[in-house]
Amino acid sequence: MTDLPTILDFAGLSALYAGGTTPAAVMAAVARRMETADPAAFILKRAQADILADVEALLARAPEPNSLPLWGLPFAVKDNIDVAGLPTTAGCPDYAYVPAADASAVKRLREAGAILIGKTNLDQFATGLNGSRSPYGAPRCVFDASYVSGGSSSGSAVVVAAGIAAFSLGTDTAGSGRVPAAFNNIVGIKPSPGRVSTTGVVPACRSIDVVTVFAASVTDGMAARRIAEGFDPADAYARRFADEALPPALRIGVPAENEREFYGNAAYRALYDAAIGRAEALGATIVSFDYRPFREAAALLYEGPWVAERLAAIEPFLNERPDSLDPTVRQIIEGGRNMTAADAFRGAYLLEALRREAEAEWAKVDCLMLPTSPDIQTVEAMRADPIALNARFGRFTNFANFFGCAAIAVPAGFTPAGLPFGVQLVAKRDTDEALGVFAATLHEAARCGAGIDRQFVPPALHEPANQSAADPHPTREKDAASRRIEIAVVGAHLTGMALNHELSERGARLERAGKTASDYRFYALDTVPPKPGLVREPGFAGPGIAIEVWSLDPSSFATFVDGIPAPLGIGKLTLDDGTSVSGFICEPAGISDAREITAFGGWKNYLASRKTAP
Amino acid sequence: MTDLPTILDFAGLSALYAGGTTPAAVMAAVARRMETADPAAFILKRAQADILADVEALLARAPEPNSLPLWGLPFAVKDNIDVAGLPTTAGCPDYAYVPAADASAVKRLREAGAILIGKTNLDQFATGLNGSRSPYGAPRCVFDASYVSGGSSSGSAVVVAAGIAAFSLGTDTAGSGRVPAAFNNIVGIKPSPGRVSTTGVVPACRSIDVVTVFAASVTDGMAARRIAEGFDPADAYARRFADEALPPALRIGVPAENEREFYGNAAYRALYDAAIGRAEALGATIVSFDYRPFREAAALLYEGPWVAERLAAIEPFLNERPDSLDPTVRQIIEGGRNMTAADAFRGAYLLEALRREAEAEWAKVDCLMLPTSPDIQTVEAMRADPIALNARFGRFTNFANFFGCAAIAVPAGFTPAGLPFGVQLVAKRDTDEALGVFAATLHEAARCGAGIDRQFVPPALHEPANQSAADPHPTREKDAASRRIEIAVVGAHLTGMALNHELSERGARLERAGKTASDYRFYALDTVPPKPGLVREPGFAGPGIAIEVWSLDPSSFATFVDGIPAPLGIGKLTLDDGTSVSGFICEPAGISDAREITAFGGWKNYLASRKTAP
Repeated sequence: MTDLPTILDFAGLSALYAGGTTPAAVMAAVARRMETADPAAFILKRAQADILADVEALLARAPEPNSLPLWGLPFAVKDNIDVAGLPTTAGCPDYAYVPAADASAVKRLREAGAILIGKTNLDQFATGLNGSRSPYGAPRCVFDASYVSGGSSSGSAVVVAAGIAAFSLGTDTAGSGRVPAAFNNIVGIKPSPGRVSTTGVVPACRSIDVVTVFAASVTDGMAARRIAEGFDPADAYARRFADEALPPALRIGVPAENEREFYGNAAYRALYDAAIGRAEALGATIVSFDYRPFREAAALLYEGPWVAERLAAIEPFLNERPDSLDPTVRQIIEGGRNMTAADAFRGAYLLEALRREAEAEWAKVDCLMLPTSPDIQTVEAMRADPIALNARFGRFTNFANFFGCAAIAVPAGFTPAGLPFGVQLVAKRDTDEALGVFAATLHEAARCGAGIDRQFVPPALHEPANQSAADPHPTREKDAASRRIEIAVVGAHLTGMALNHELSERGARLERAGKTASDYRFYALDTVPPKPGLVREPGFAGPGIAIEVWSLDPSSFATFVDGIPAPLGIGKLTLDDGTSVSGFICEPAGISDAREITAFGGWKNYLASRKTAP
Repeated sequence: MTDLPTILDFAGLSALYAGGTTPAAVMAAVARRMETADPAAFILKRAQADILADVEALLARAPEPNSLPLWGLPFAVKDNIDVAGLPTTAGCPDYAYVPAADASAVKRLREAGAILIGKTNLDQFATGLNGSRSPYGAPRCVFDASYVSGGSSSGSAVVVAAGIAAFSLGTDTAGSGRVPAAFNNIVGIKPSPGRVSTTGVVPACRSIDVVTVFAASVTDGMAARRIAEGFDPADAYARRFADEALPPALRIGVPAENEREFYGNAAYRALYDAAIGRAEALGATIVSFDYRPFREAAALLYEGPWVAERLAAIEPFLNERPDSLDPTVRQIIEGGRNMTAADAFRGAYLLEALRREAEAEWAKVDCLMLPTSPDIQTVEAMRADPIALNARFGRFTNFANFFGCAAIAVPAGFTPAGLPFGVQLVAKRDTDEALGVFAATLHEAARCGAGIDRQFVPPALHEPANQSAADPHPTREKDAASRRIEIAVVGAHLTGMALNHELSERGARLERAGKTASDYRFYALDTVPPKPGLVREPGFAGPGIAIEVWSLDPSSFATFVDGIPAPLGIGKLTLDDGTSVSGFICEPAGISDAREITAFGGWKNYLASRKTAP
């Protein structure tokens, strides 16, 4: 009998597999957890025989443990996302249909080795942020069954938090991929709209719906997101995208005091203040900003014409079977009937105006750190006042998809009553990778674990993954601008040296260290700051010179090169493995009076020798 | 008494001013033409005293002739665009208001020295493509008064075609900045949406309205467009933009035969075929493409929810004064009342799907060449069948703003009956500059003059203008990516040399020629293709080496630099004027066996000497 870790993080499962545990044994242990799980978490639990058939198929095509990025990782899918052959209910039994194909994201994850264990409960038609609007029952906060789980991706959050799935898919229009993460002490990765295809997803507001990932850590969630995302020509809202950088030292925006609404939840307010303190301790600069344009945009989602977008998604069904809907969901969606096409355009104008107003706030900061939800409520209270209390939860989430943002929700501690609180980092479109670095650090610093395992230590994600190496879809189309150019540095641009900031402030990534071929001589130039010059002399047999290879996006590479003063320039260096890479060369005039330092084998060795010398 | 040229092209007027003609004299001559103009062309002719007051103010701030980009050029403005102190009617007297400020585009043009002569007639609320939907009368085609002028920017096209204004402003939602250009043998410049602010413009469909320029030539129209455009924070749909390049040899898309609808207008069909022949003769590759997704998107503008966007623009006025509207315009706009917000979202989805389908066609071509209008009609016929005949005119124009395109309409000859025909070049967003090069050539090749001057020879625009030099708003915000980086080339990358294509295919621009400082030696390297190496030797006094300075956008600069093989690289060159610029340097190893060719003073001279030598 396999002992699973309390929470199913990717590294823990991969270690089990590397140690000889079989996926079948893991799935058997998962099945036992499924039996004792919150009965409202799943709408459909797959039969163990079906799960094992998937395991067999995995072993047939990828027998080596961990030989695929998500090899043998159990995952669950929100039941508004298609899985071939299983009913999609969207939380409404009468709406159910059986799709012939997996949703695009599900297909990619299964191809990468993940094993589907079931379909999870949700606020019907993904309309809600609390988890109590479902005929399949209300999943509960894993820490206190009197409290809501958050929604609409209620079940998907609960199964990760309870250690049943290694990750799960949710969707997020208002905040459905983030609020349940906060209420269950897990990570919610909300990609920028258009990165993950919505083909095979029941629309809520189709123009801004996003498929999301819940996981125990930012590292795990990002890994699943990278698999799930990719351009899909069948989704008219899918985009070809290129990752955007963030500076290493973030300016983090927090709402000015007049916008810090917690609806009287003093414990949440204190936890938010503590999170700000941690962010500052981690080196971020905290900047107060005006949340007003964001709040007004957030309000449009349920108070403006976008309610009619929910209507557009299910109008024929609603007309035919109005009594099939949850009464609250029906009330909300039918509100869209009163809105004219002219109203829709006026709403769009208002949103554009708010987006423009928000630009002034974005100019002050690199990302926002907001409460994921400013409040939590019991299921009983929610049922008594289902719309107003739900609206509270979306106060700080609802704007993000309107503004095209990437967001990551991370755990941020517990109230004295034992209820979890979370914060979200939100930044501009396609900062998904860059945002993960600080999000992982912030999660780690909160020391509140993941899900029900409050001792779990989330792994840090110290720099954006090397996309070119990790990209599971190397042939997929991306913008030319997403290509990174490598450059070998040998002197003042090395890590820790005087001009390294010229790389780091451009979002450069250290790819590897190495050395040149042996036919290079090395000189200390007479420059301020001190710099070396590298000169190739065919036939010379020296020690080779230590280099670092960094990568930059093309625009950053361009401005970096354009800023290099004579006698240096960028040509091609030959490395000791015979490869060639762009790197620093030196004009002959630069070395006429320079001291040769080839014997030191590198700039850092040379500088160290000068420090120790008298 | 000043003799004005028949058509008021910028060069002709500037030459008059350079020769001592005063702006007052030009305005007096313009006033005489205004008196005899089509009485329906203007809604408001400015009093000569007011025009002369503007001339006085111009002379006070810029006394030197031609000392501002549009110094003393008479222009007119469509009457849905605000001019401070003059009524804006939008073609509807009861709607009129007197704005306190110029529209953003008008303000920029006046600041650049242009002199406003009046406000021009239009299809009411810019709803129409024919010019007969105005209580101020129907302007006529300048070649045959029984025919429509085209609309909605009817008067603005007529006043340029008749030699009354050097340029004029129109607007274009469906095709209003292009169709009247075609019907009056002039150029219509339709910028990409978001480049020219619509602040101060009465909306038609606000999300896709574009301010346009009519002129006698592409060169003139582009010059005015460059002045008019620029980011405006007050316009929520304004964008910060960067020019996109097009390759020098264009692949031009023409509709496959089944989509070449001319509604039986055989003369127009023949003129379109002739235009294709000219484009091919000018070096373009003609590619057949499927116009269907473009046509279906075009149809959405009047058959889909965007009619309700016109309603949103004037709904309170329409509710209060329904009888104030032209009956046809009222019928169209009231059609928007039947559409729900859900319809609006469904229309948006359909448009997104068509945009995606169109991507497959865009992949085949660099730009499209389409009939501007496939048909022209008499005013009488139009009044008998005002909606169906109007729809014909927009068949090939209506998609462009939906798809974010730049478009330029140019004259393309006359029918045997003496009616003008035009074609439009349409390409992706922000190709506005690049598109002008071929558009100017195509206009010139048609040899049909401009407006009523069928002998006028439009100037060629052989390459995109040097934005950095010509930019009238050097401080305005642009994306960082719009910055261009200069690079000095000395050998195989010079104009006409073997590797020059590595620059041209990246959209590089030749900025200037020059030579290096005198302390450079020059070597012929042993490479294929042959290349030189430039080596600085402080103190050496040589002739200096001929260089060309090209500019590239940062991404193109990056890939260019990254592609340079050893022993060459990019460092800093010092030029003979003491300035420094990125340019080719050479590793010492490269010149050990190379022949010194410094005395030739440059690569082309050296190669010429080898050709003539035995």
